[in-house]
Amino acid sequence: METMVMSNKQVIFRDYVIGFLSESDLLINSTTVNLKVPAGSMTALVKNLYLSCDPYMRNRMRKPDPSSPATALSFIPGKPISGFGVSKVVDSGHPDYKEGDLLWGAVGWEEYSVITPIPNLHFKIHHTDVPLSHYTGLLGMPGMTAYAGFYEICSPKKGETVFVSAASGAVGQLVGQFAKLMGCYVVGSAGSKEKVDLLKNKFGFDDAFNYKEESDLNAALKRCFPVGIDIYFENVGGPMLDAVILNMRPHGRIAACGMISQYNLQIPEAVYNLWLITYKRICIQGFNTIDYLHKYSEFLEFVLPYLREGKITYVEDVADGLESAPAALVGLFHGKNVGKQLVVVSRDLH
Amino acid sequence: METMVMSNKQVIFRDYVIGFLSESDLLINSTTVNLKVPAGSMTALVKNLYLSCDPYMRNRMRKPDPSSPATALSFIPGKPISGFGVSKVVDSGHPDYKEGDLLWGAVGWEEYSVITPIPNLHFKIHHTDVPLSHYTGLLGMPGMTAYAGFYEICSPKKGETVFVSAASGAVGQLVGQFAKLMGCYVVGSAGSKEKVDLLKNKFGFDDAFNYKEESDLNAALKRCFPVGIDIYFENVGGPMLDAVILNMRPHGRIAACGMISQYNLQIPEAVYNLWLITYKRICIQGFNTIDYLHKYSEFLEFVLPYLREGKITYVEDVADGLESAPAALVGLFHGKNVGKQLVVVSRDLH
Repeated sequence: METMVMSNKQVIFRDYVIGFLSESDLLINSTTVNLKVPAGSMTALVKNLYLSCDPYMRNRMRKPDPSSPATALSFIPGKPISGFGVSKVVDSGHPDYKEGDLLWGAVGWEEYSVITPIPNLHFKIHHTDVPLSHYTGLLGMPGMTAYAGFYEICSPKKGETVFVSAASGAVGQLVGQFAKLMGCYVVGSAGSKEKVDLLKNKFGFDDAFNYKEESDLNAALKRCFPVGIDIYFENVGGPMLDAVILNMRPHGRIAACGMISQYNLQIPEAVYNLWLITYKRICIQGFNTIDYLHKYSEFLEFVLPYLREGKITYVEDVADGLESAPAALVGLFHGKNVGKQLVVVSRDLH
Repeated sequence: METMVMSNKQVIFRDYVIGFLSESDLLINSTTVNLKVPAGSMTALVKNLYLSCDPYMRNRMRKPDPSSPATALSFIPGKPISGFGVSKVVDSGHPDYKEGDLLWGAVGWEEYSVITPIPNLHFKIHHTDVPLSHYTGLLGMPGMTAYAGFYEICSPKKGETVFVSAASGAVGQLVGQFAKLMGCYVVGSAGSKEKVDLLKNKFGFDDAFNYKEESDLNAALKRCFPVGIDIYFENVGGPMLDAVILNMRPHGRIAACGMISQYNLQIPEAVYNLWLITYKRICIQGFNTIDYLHKYSEFLEFVLPYLREGKITYVEDVADGLESAPAALVGLFHGKNVGKQLVVVSRDLH
């Protein structure tokens, strides 16, 4: 059997994390990998080009709770963490994947991964006139999340008012642009002046505020939404959710995409205003993009023309090299990223 | 113009209520009423027979909040409170209502009310082979609430697991029986041994527990639902909701019918586990029966045969006389009622 052994740097999960994730919870380690898959194998050996930093990954660092199997699958201590990434097939035993194919989907955080391609978890990249890195964001899982979350969960109508938290992030910046395309009034919150400026000047939000500079989130929302909120695209949770409920209009919809402010807390923050959802007939719908990935080609057909025509834009925050991956991931939970956080493992397509 | 003046006892709303409702917030007062409606009027003069005590009424005792118009309309200090009741038309200027007609719908808490009949808020009673008092409960607004909440909001399927809180109450006892008819596994919580016995022995719940005797609601739910909860019919809110979220299965549904444990609190209780709804893809849907009353005749066709065949039963807690109405209403918030709480104003149909 032909072998071609290469060194393979990996981001190793040290142990289950309690409290805030820190860089020291992740180790860079080097091992080796055989670039040829065994004869008869249905696996593919891929070279990772870009890795996606996503907030949900923090929840895979919790100790598994056998009584709550619905939560995300935990990473295994001592093994590399995994997530979504863009990669190139180096060798493949799978008849549908061949050397040189570009993919996006689930891979390890490492230079090379052995994957067993799974429909709706590994997608071939057919359009390369757009930036390849976008398949970690706009054209990948976060894009699908914004698409399914906004159009399927929020049931938006022209003229409705939409609030997006973490609005300059991987998903939020798209939700805001989708909502503007639909003719909604759109306000976003973010954690710095730079991000607020992006929302207003680059993504076309009607208004935006820096939540860190608002002593009263309820008052900030009342100022931006004098008639109330029809749709809340929830990315943060905690006190923001509480203030939003106070400002929701009757029959309002909350798409619970994620609650990043809560993932590192040992005791989640309290929400007090839920009793109002009966009177306001509010729907809070938690969703997971995994349930919508079968719609990916429909989504691509929808979004690619907007991207090519410049009607949708996308901001990425790029960390260089696998060594920078732990800091990039940790930075998500402190709002250090401006736009979609990704890691370049290699720009070498050959 | 013919006049026929009668004395008219009323339950007067003293002033907006802060904290726990007490009997002294309501006064019995006597005034007079003309039993003939003015010529040309579209109103009806009705004699009230039964009044319904409903938890939502507490929220109409809050000071109106102009910034939150979505909440229930507040009662007016110095005026009688109002709610749903069963009454008989004494005189009417409205062509669709005539003397002797029996109605259920919105009336004042008083012996006689002048009403302007409104479609979907005042319903003629055509079936009198069943107890007339049931039109405050099983055959009235609470019945409609259980019907819409369970079948429309919960999307139940045979074999699913269903949890009902305040399960022996006006709505809960019906939801449990509907869920059993559908072939679900049904567990209820209530606040006394007597109520728990009712759930298990009269309403056919598969299991039930007294929440006041459980030091750990999460453990109680785990004991009753080893595989988790598909549907939660929410009547109480607060710590019970928090414990339920921990025990919900993926794609679970929570019908937020009401949160009676929160209505008398100046600061609502905290809920901590909302961040889990994303991972579990839980839907929490607040609803208000007002939005479903156009389905009342469909509901009656559904439920009357079950009632007549004895396949659905209904327990009422009857307070006698308008003087007992304040205590009956206050008692709701302390769980004093066993079954649907109603007040008999008069049993005299003539």
